[in-house]
Amino acid sequence: MTNTYTYINGQIVPENEAKLLVTDLAIQRGYGIFDFLKTVNGKPIFIQDYFDRFYNSAKEMNLEVDLSREELYEVISSLLEKNNIPNAGLKFILTGGYSDDGYQIAKPNLIIVQAPFAYNHSNFAKGLSILSCNYQRQLPSVKTIDYLQAIRLQPMLKLKQADDLLYHNNGEVRECPRANIFLVKDNQIITPKTDILRGITRSKILGINIAGYTIEEQDFTLDDLAKADEVFITSSTKNVLPVLSLDGNLIGSGKPGMISAVLSEKLLSMISSY
Amino acid sequence: MTNTYTYINGQIVPENEAKLLVTDLAIQRGYGIFDFLKTVNGKPIFIQDYFDRFYNSAKEMNLEVDLSREELYEVISSLLEKNNIPNAGLKFILTGGYSDDGYQIAKPNLIIVQAPFAYNHSNFAKGLSILSCNYQRQLPSVKTIDYLQAIRLQPMLKLKQADDLLYHNNGEVRECPRANIFLVKDNQIITPKTDILRGITRSKILGINIAGYTIEEQDFTLDDLAKADEVFITSSTKNVLPVLSLDGNLIGSGKPGMISAVLSEKLLSMISSY
Repeated sequence: MTNTYTYINGQIVPENEAKLLVTDLAIQRGYGIFDFLKTVNGKPIFIQDYFDRFYNSAKEMNLEVDLSREELYEVISSLLEKNNIPNAGLKFILTGGYSDDGYQIAKPNLIIVQAPFAYNHSNFAKGLSILSCNYQRQLPSVKTIDYLQAIRLQPMLKLKQADDLLYHNNGEVRECPRANIFLVKDNQIITPKTDILRGITRSKILGINIAGYTIEEQDFTLDDLAKADEVFITSSTKNVLPVLSLDGNLIGSGKPGMISAVLSEKLLSMISSY
Repeated sequence: MTNTYTYINGQIVPENEAKLLVTDLAIQRGYGIFDFLKTVNGKPIFIQDYFDRFYNSAKEMNLEVDLSREELYEVISSLLEKNNIPNAGLKFILTGGYSDDGYQIAKPNLIIVQAPFAYNHSNFAKGLSILSCNYQRQLPSVKTIDYLQAIRLQPMLKLKQADDLLYHNNGEVRECPRANIFLVKDNQIITPKTDILRGITRSKILGINIAGYTIEEQDFTLDDLAKADEVFITSSTKNVLPVLSLDGNLIGSGKPGMISAVLSEKLLSMISSY
């Protein structure tokens, strides 16, 4: 454990004092939402997009955020100042609160945790191997704390020496547990549009122009993925990361592709100029 | 809040001191399992059945229980003695533990909470109205803490003045969020067998003999339910509770049925002679 501070319900405390009563609905019923962004040189990147999603997740789950966006921004600024970790991940969690009967939503508990994080550019060249898993996330457009399936399958991933899971719904590709997926085929770059979490990095990629290529939302299957020229995943920690194999079979040349590289650089320059 | 004591990782503490660090995987990722049983006159009813399920849930989720069954029984006995609440609910929760990276399973945290509870026989006559909801629980045979859907829909239930949800998978009946369901039609008493949590009370009902009736596991649809002679749900807190309407339409006579009443009495006598 590092010596960082955590925000919890109006107070900034050392992280080893940041606790919730066991009556909290996250502990009792897995009930909560969160969001995660990174700071680069002290700047919370794309923070308004993350706020949009966070407040929307809260609303979808009938959880009230008792801070306005401005107040939340103030709180985050105070925490960043206190911790003084310029390159970090920032996670805000909103739980169902201390429920009298362990079932009804109460006044939510709001927690903000910061931990050192810096993007490692050398991961791009290594790429990822992924395993497909037939699973549809519940309430897919809401960033809930439900990661039962992903965490349960971690030991299996290790055993098979794979890096991540890829969820599909009976063959129709959805997303990785913590990242969106794209494929490149001929002159098209596409990412699933149905029953997924709309990643902020995904939305930034969808806004990039590459001459001679279209970039758009369009569902595809595991077969399409296997036959793609390039595949990559996106997230706020991973940026653009090439997928080199699916279920043990190489994708394309089995090496990071040119389009993935171009998108990665374009995203990095958006981040550094934010 | 009442003044009861809670067990947490080897210690018995006042419930307002029973806390977990926010790094716990239940708070970070909704990752945990639990079980719930009741004590009647100080006796934990059917406790070995609940232990079977609890240890199995832990195993399915790759969580280690660092207490043997005998040790867990000892802990529960100490807690019951300390609290001295003869009629109570006893909930044991096992979480993913304090994870360094908020993703990998760590040493689980074990919490045991006791709260006063006594079965209210007058609920039988009142019965329940239920609303159907197309939803398949993930990892259905494991008693995880995932109640996202049920808790999210509580405000809607209140608005429609219904008592509980009934999950079905595209018309095939599954279960209520915290109870199993049975129907009675002609001389058959059946309860779904596919993709459900196998309730302990459900298993006791399946073991009861009623002359002239068969009692067995068999899947059925919402249509079958609507046309049933009687419908009831079972759980450790509800025992046998008649369902009088589904989606606003009366079931059978719209009154608690004879078979439900007989099963309720037989179950109560099993409990009182336990």
